[in-house]
Amino acid sequence: VPKLIDHSQREVEVAEAAWRVLRRDGVTSLSVRTVAAEAGLATGSLRRAFPTQDALLAFSLELVGRRARARIEALPPAASVREGVEARLFELIPLDDERRAEMDAYFTIGSLASTRPALAPAYRALYDDLRAGCRAMLEALARESSGGEVPDEASLDLEAQHLHALLDGVALHLIQPGEASDRSKQIITTHLDRLDWPTRH
Amino acid sequence: VPKLIDHSQREVEVAEAAWRVLRRDGVTSLSVRTVAAEAGLATGSLRRAFPTQDALLAFSLELVGRRARARIEALPPAASVREGVEARLFELIPLDDERRAEMDAYFTIGSLASTRPALAPAYRALYDDLRAGCRAMLEALARESSGGEVPDEASLDLEAQHLHALLDGVALHLIQPGEASDRSKQIITTHLDRLDWPTRH
Repeated sequence: VPKLIDHSQREVEVAEAAWRVLRRDGVTSLSVRTVAAEAGLATGSLRRAFPTQDALLAFSLELVGRRARARIEALPPAASVREGVEARLFELIPLDDERRAEMDAYFTIGSLASTRPALAPAYRALYDDLRAGCRAMLEALARESSGGEVPDEASLDLEAQHLHALLDGVALHLIQPGEASDRSKQIITTHLDRLDWPTRH
Repeated sequence: VPKLIDHSQREVEVAEAAWRVLRRDGVTSLSVRTVAAEAGLATGSLRRAFPTQDALLAFSLELVGRRARARIEALPPAASVREGVEARLFELIPLDDERRAEMDAYFTIGSLASTRPALAPAYRALYDDLRAGCRAMLEALARESSGGEVPDEASLDLEAQHLHALLDGVALHLIQPGEASDRSKQIITTHLDRLDWPTRH
């Protein structure tokens, strides 16, 4: 988990305004001017907090991760490992409008990151966090299903890459119009049902 | 499969130039001017073929689908249904630089499509084609594994949505730096290995 910068509430409002501009008008409409207008701030005031568009986008991306972590930390205790894993995974796919806006920002800024080096660290941090989170959840499931045995590292890495790809694919489709969200949850639970671990001997 | 417009070779070269600009410089650098320069054409000449940026992007997207279909049609006959399905699925993930450029264009233009109605039909056509292709492959696998029985429609729809999400997630990760492509193929074969169909009785 990267160290969180202590941005003020105003900066959070600015990042949320950036998500709304991205979702409503698209990335080519995003500028310090349009985000300032959306947030109800003077352009100069926005520039003091975020001197460049990349600084604004990097913070918007960091906020996506911070929100997801906060939602996961706020989950009630689960009755079982499996239930806890499902609850966490469902927080990582966009099942409501707020999370659709976050996820849209994640994919859009992520796609910009491949050609804008200033955005790459924030995107990579989220990507690596999600991968590590998938790995930790899978390890917990594997330990439980085998009575404490740990699957080998290579299987765990492969399963983490698999679950991460499935989550991002499901999330990507959920921000399209018309994709059914109840089936998205079922896809994830089916995937978990089918896991079988080669255990270490 | 949407009807293919008979664009000239020059138009294909323009679309490929657009992919290169997208991949190298990002979507915010894409314009009729930058694509004309990349293709070695006068801006006015490009505007005659593609009067708007959206027309250029819609054609670039259509070409992604056309290329994928051509690669799949050119595959040699497979020794089994399963081998044929794997070979087709591997053509749909970006395992080389050319396909990474195509896939980058697919995701980038797809993300623009949510706010630009002129791009939505071309994106939706690709999305629906890929979903239908997944469904047809799964139906062939299910028939073979059950000795001809057809799985129920609801299972087939759910499995098609699942495979489509997995493919898009794997593809999305393969255009990131550092994601191992051999593991991507293994993720897909593992998914196919784990399929089990509730058959119709």
